[in-house]
Amino acid sequence: MTGEMVIKFLDTMIKQIENLRNNIELDSILEFISSIQNAERIFVMGAGRSGFIAKAFAMRLMHLGYNVYVVGETVTPRIERNDILIAISGSGETSSIVSISKKAKEMIGSKLIAITGRRNSPLAEISDVVVLLKAKLKTDEDEELSKIAPLGTMFELTSMIFLDAIIAELMKIKNMSEKDLAERHAVLE
Amino acid sequence: MTGEMVIKFLDTMIKQIENLRNNIELDSILEFISSIQNAERIFVMGAGRSGFIAKAFAMRLMHLGYNVYVVGETVTPRIERNDILIAISGSGETSSIVSISKKAKEMIGSKLIAITGRRNSPLAEISDVVVLLKAKLKTDEDEELSKIAPLGTMFELTSMIFLDAIIAELMKIKNMSEKDLAERHAVLE
Amino acid sequence: MTGEMVIKFLDTMIKQIENLRNNIELDSILEFISSIQNAERIFVMGAGRSGFIAKAFAMRLMHLGYNVYVVGETVTPRIERNDILIAISGSGETSSIVSISKKAKEMIGSKLIAITGRRNSPLAEISDVVVLLKAKLKTDEDEELSKIAPLGTMFELTSMIFLDAIIAELMKIKNMSEKDLAERHAVLE
Amino acid sequence: MTGEMVIKFLDTMIKQIENLRNNIELDSILEFISSIQNAERIFVMGAGRSGFIAKAFAMRLMHLGYNVYVVGETVTPRIERNDILIAISGSGETSSIVSISKKAKEMIGSKLIAITGRRNSPLAEISDVVVLLKAKLKTDEDEELSKIAPLGTMFELTSMIFLDAIIAELMKIKNMSEKDLAERHAVLE
Repeated sequence: MTGEMVIKFLDTMIKQIENLRNNIELDSILEFISSIQNAERIFVMGAGRSGFIAKAFAMRLMHLGYNVYVVGETVTPRIERNDILIAISGSGETSSIVSISKKAKEMIGSKLIAITGRRNSPLAEISDVVVLLKAKLKTDEDEELSKIAPLGTMFELTSMIFLDAIIAELMKIKNMSEKDLAERHAVLE
Repeated sequence: MTGEMVIKFLDTMIKQIENLRNNIELDSILEFISSIQNAERIFVMGAGRSGFIAKAFAMRLMHLGYNVYVVGETVTPRIERNDILIAISGSGETSSIVSISKKAKEMIGSKLIAITGRRNSPLAEISDVVVLLKAKLKTDEDEELSKIAPLGTMFELTSMIFLDAIIAELMKIKNMSEKDLAERHAVLE
Repeated sequence: MTGEMVIKFLDTMIKQIENLRNNIELDSILEFISSIQNAERIFVMGAGRSGFIAKAFAMRLMHLGYNVYVVGETVTPRIERNDILIAISGSGETSSIVSISKKAKEMIGSKLIAITGRRNSPLAEISDVVVLLKAKLKTDEDEELSKIAPLGTMFELTSMIFLDAIIAELMKIKNMSEKDLAERHAVLE
Repeated sequence: MTGEMVIKFLDTMIKQIENLRNNIELDSILEFISSIQNAERIFVMGAGRSGFIAKAFAMRLMHLGYNVYVVGETVTPRIERNDILIAISGSGETSSIVSISKKAKEMIGSKLIAITGRRNSPLAEISDVVVLLKAKLKTDEDEELSKIAPLGTMFELTSMIFLDAIIAELMKIKNMSEKDLAERHAVLE
């Protein structure tokens, strides 16, 4: 027990974020941001650890004053045509996520945004906007990475960091300060 | 709308993880890991976004075969003397987290582990093991950082990355492969 | 294994609801309803099984078009002066519930409503409106009832039924039909 | 505003529980109970308000010492062949519930138990054990009931009461007292 894997993991993460930074697809980011800006209400979802990342993003969107809901939480109303649905799935094939996305798109006509690691996935194929984040996915085999970043770990951390970078951009666009966010932050916790 | 803040944010994150990597306190990490190894059961908790990070960590501990529970979830039983409680709080002063931690420690005698950004905080002061993660906290004012990483963002991302680094170390110690984890991963999602 | 306890339990429940029906305190009900009607936003909370009942009530209030939030869920904003907080606790002494209630009342000045089984409890004593539901509580000892309705079971079922009765009254007041509620019911599930 | 609907609702509930009591199908109850008794682990799920009822039942099963998990919660592992899945759905056609149930049954071979209001529903048709609870469902139209018990209200309350009656029976079978349950009840809340 030496902490050696901790160091290896952090070195890998640094490279991963450098990669993310150097391969930013500005077009899809701008489309993503303008979808958020123009939506009446924003719905987010993800399964497993991607679900926690969806919630972390939703909480900050709420702090920024957006009308935002998490699919499956208590007070989440029926999604409507002018709402957007942001679905987070590394593989783009998590069955509940794909089936709910289809429903929102086909039955309701809501705009669908995929945060995913695979462009040719069931989720990406039906999405209006695809934000592609390159990272080892749950379904990828990679002898080296599998030992330190099992399953969807790299995608999950990458998407959490990416979505907080989007929050930074939204603060600038809306000209909001940390104090503005703090005013909406829950105190009953 | 130019994506400028996205880039700034990612540059900041790279520096933050480099900092984390270069200032690893091996002693507290080893203590943290051996507490996990020796616990009968592991309880985790956090409020707000730190709560989602606690859950993401708990899910991976489950994949590794540990007996783990999230405080407040449905099937979480009474904590006992030989269990450990891992509390995540950047400021170390979130009231519910501090009050529950006190209860676990004083009433039950469980070992308390703080993942926090402040050593002289109410939480750290009563903890048996303190894992200190240097990062801008919700309660810190920092003119530059506040514009791109509001509230507890830096601490939250840092702790999520750090805890996944701990998972890498635990995989090595337990000699477990990605396949071992995949076998415990939920399929009903 | 004969189903004998199932029958005993159902007989007990029938008597319990008859009791509830015959001892309705109309004054506190009307106060409760007018608090809901006049609130800008409604916050609900409860711990353990009372928490699930709080959520079931919140979901229906959302279906009725109210602005409602569950304390601790992702998109729940800061509570304000013109909001109300509905706290469900049989014993009225669950520590997190009492401490959050105090905070809402003293720091923010929100109106506090207790759904509880004990008038002389820490929660009831600081509440603006007390809705008292007589039922065996987690802290009550009752040789007969304890065998079939352990811990807070009687209070929990009684409060869930009572709160759905309040929904019936609110539908009438707001002149809303089942169809109006169905239109807000989530379809992504 | 007179409380008239409150009284009407409670009168309806009393009749509903009398009906439940007088039409108990002992066979399916005994099958349900023996499935719980013989399972290695128990998984429960439901969508919306039925989901809260599933959680309330899971919590009591945990208090009784069963190995129980809620589908979708953090520490829920992969379901296996010797586990049972209890699915609560009034209409028996909630799409996520049906699709997850199919997966558990076809891919894994777990025993499937439906708590539902409709025998000829997609859920009931694939279930090994069907516990039928007669009550107005979300999909039923009933001019009188719709005004006081909208959507799935009657089914939800009926199933919550029924499942607590099952707890009473399990306490007897396992010869457990309220004190035994209290010893597993969470104290960190």
